[in-house]
Amino acid sequence: MNAQESFASQPFTAVEVIAAKRDGGRLTPEQIAWTIAAYTRGDIAEEQMAALNMAILLNGMDRSEISQWTAAMVASGETLDFSGLRNRAGAPLPTTDKHSTGGVGDKITLPLAPLVAVFGAAVPQLSGRGLGHTGGTLDKLEAIPGWRADVSHDALLRQLSEVGAVICAAGGNLAPADKKLYALRDVTGTVESIPLIASSIMSKKIAEGTGALVLDVKVGSGAFMKTEERARELARTMVALGKDAGVNTVALLTDMSTPLGLTAGNAIEVEESVEVLAGGGPEDVVELTVALAREMLEAAGIRDADPAAALRDGRAMDVWRRMISAQGGDPDAALPAARESDVVYAPADGVLVGLDAMAVGVAAWRLGAGRARKEDAVQAGAGVRMHAKPGALVRAGEPLMTLLTDTPEKFASAREALAAAVVIAPEGSRPANRLIIDRIA
Amino acid sequence: MNAQESFASQPFTAVEVIAAKRDGGRLTPEQIAWTIAAYTRGDIAEEQMAALNMAILLNGMDRSEISQWTAAMVASGETLDFSGLRNRAGAPLPTTDKHSTGGVGDKITLPLAPLVAVFGAAVPQLSGRGLGHTGGTLDKLEAIPGWRADVSHDALLRQLSEVGAVICAAGGNLAPADKKLYALRDVTGTVESIPLIASSIMSKKIAEGTGALVLDVKVGSGAFMKTEERARELARTMVALGKDAGVNTVALLTDMSTPLGLTAGNAIEVEESVEVLAGGGPEDVVELTVALAREMLEAAGIRDADPAAALRDGRAMDVWRRMISAQGGDPDAALPAARESDVVYAPADGVLVGLDAMAVGVAAWRLGAGRARKEDAVQAGAGVRMHAKPGALVRAGEPLMTLLTDTPEKFASAREALAAAVVIAPEGSRPANRLIIDRIA
Repeated sequence: MNAQESFASQPFTAVEVIAAKRDGGRLTPEQIAWTIAAYTRGDIAEEQMAALNMAILLNGMDRSEISQWTAAMVASGETLDFSGLRNRAGAPLPTTDKHSTGGVGDKITLPLAPLVAVFGAAVPQLSGRGLGHTGGTLDKLEAIPGWRADVSHDALLRQLSEVGAVICAAGGNLAPADKKLYALRDVTGTVESIPLIASSIMSKKIAEGTGALVLDVKVGSGAFMKTEERARELARTMVALGKDAGVNTVALLTDMSTPLGLTAGNAIEVEESVEVLAGGGPEDVVELTVALAREMLEAAGIRDADPAAALRDGRAMDVWRRMISAQGGDPDAALPAARESDVVYAPADGVLVGLDAMAVGVAAWRLGAGRARKEDAVQAGAGVRMHAKPGALVRAGEPLMTLLTDTPEKFASAREALAAAVVIAPEGSRPANRLIIDRIA
Repeated sequence: MNAQESFASQPFTAVEVIAAKRDGGRLTPEQIAWTIAAYTRGDIAEEQMAALNMAILLNGMDRSEISQWTAAMVASGETLDFSGLRNRAGAPLPTTDKHSTGGVGDKITLPLAPLVAVFGAAVPQLSGRGLGHTGGTLDKLEAIPGWRADVSHDALLRQLSEVGAVICAAGGNLAPADKKLYALRDVTGTVESIPLIASSIMSKKIAEGTGALVLDVKVGSGAFMKTEERARELARTMVALGKDAGVNTVALLTDMSTPLGLTAGNAIEVEESVEVLAGGGPEDVVELTVALAREMLEAAGIRDADPAAALRDGRAMDVWRRMISAQGGDPDAALPAARESDVVYAPADGVLVGLDAMAVGVAAWRLGAGRARKEDAVQAGAGVRMHAKPGALVRAGEPLMTLLTDTPEKFASAREALAAAVVIAPEGSRPANRLIIDRIA
């Protein structure tokens, strides 16, 4: 008999919900709805939610529990509704969105959003800032002089209708339960739970009101999911949650053992994205951008599009320029550059078979491209520019990477992060990784 | 890579300790010492400790982890030292203590402490107040007019030396980590962990500096441990912890499926204790008091004592009277009585085979004998007086229990708690329980 019991003025007590999951039981839909609502309004304390999170991490939730948990987080705040969206000609505009679980050098959203808009879908890409070794899409775009991440709801609708693509900060009060829960999980060792990760991502995306969703679930050293098995389970869980919420959802499992493209930073990733929009850029960035564009269009019911052609012929670039301008950015302005640079040379002759994503991500972060605390600023010019991708033949003494920063005292710790990042094998070797590992629908 | 990592000015981060236990690992002695110290000084937040507690509850700790956890809680505050204690004649006084895991009608400490002191051991019985359905020793003694639970350290030493027995509130700053941790576990569904229960109990007892310790581990509906298996595991764990800390420790496993004696409350339990000290009282209370006295004396190195004789011939009563007087109590004063009473009658003829401890405990609590919140007051006169013990032949309509309270509006909810408490079987039946189930040394 718990002391709180006699004072119950609520349908449940936090302790009984925690105990149910602790003892391996299923939470009822009513318990889940109450728990998320009570936590959001402060009736369940942080320490109680922390204990429940750990019990969920260790004892799991089944599909219907995760689905109810996600729905309760969506219901904790506002939701957006794009169902009435029309293009300039007055025709209905289907919305389609992409979410990546985060990787190093992952600038794909930048060329992807305008590319998809070319074909008559609207892309409301509500994004975040980076924390830790993976960069944030908004941090990257903020390297563009004048560009503003904050867009009012009316401006968002107008830009979707007129330009077709918006990348901006999530405004308003979308899934506040998730915001609170994520901050708690971060400090209590309860991030690594697939039910909690999946419901966190999907609650935001469902609240954002997209009609179709493509998930880019990363696997490998630079990804949150280190093994294919875990990544696959996360992808399957999120696709199921999407379907349960009526969002047409598909997932690609993609490699994150090495960085995407040749840049990891902010301004330098914008630069590389513009190369891709100009029909060039690194092969892997182009491949993944095109593959994701196909999936987003197909999920929105738009077939027979040729995204690769729209990169080559400048149509995607046109949308990009309008998208950047609509948010105050100058697409022609010079991008900020780091004041200092330091070159990392190849230690031997051979084939570059490994260039570790996590190591490069941590190095870029330490150079100033990322932040350790939410309130930190990032350096627009900082990061790592790579001169070779896995598979390339290199010679000892040849430049492999250039480290960029405004704060040269960071070079030593960036180099330390890179100490074991480079693997060179005898000529004739081949790196093992496929970029797109699987598709889960 | 966690955001906190780059700001580590401590040997560990809370997240890495949580993650180690979450992932099924052993915590190192250094991690445990840091965790308890950092939590005590506030460097580990409540939500972090809650997540760690849940991970410990679900993934366990081994003997050496529990032993280090206990030692760290002892080290979090002051410790008492009775090693220099002498009796009035100047001879060394061995200290010996008893701890019960809590039960209904468990007034054993009251006759036991003076009884053990008769034979030349000192009994520093630092006790607590009740919360929930089990009563608190201090609440019971506070029914005696004038009696004070708070005793200074000097007065404690003097009373031990002159009287031989003290039952008082734990003063000072003993195991503050445990106090903080217990309050947290209570609201986070993490009470039911044997490593955490065992370390909580033993850290207090070790900090209290007793030389020998006897544990009364209760099993059954009215006990914290509902099954013999769990009770046995708790007893073994605590005995091992005692030995690791150099305290000669032994445990009895005793039945708590039915209340001890014929009273559950405060003043009425004092009254029954005095009956036992006068050589009378219910058989089960006498049996357990004598058994525990033998164990406490043997653990303190005192053999060939005859505690039953000291109850019969008034020597224990003499110590009781001096012990109560030393703390301002009047052993001859009339005890407070409840203003209202209500009788529960036997519903049928037969043998009373069940009188559920938890039900009686909850009824007594609801009548006002216990508190639901720490800050509540208790009614000295409230409780349940039983007129038959399991094994007794009863007739339909005969009084089985008398409910006592100053607040008669509580009768209905007390009767509700008792609805299924009484089991009457055909004549010739016998209740199944032994009082003393096992001894673990």
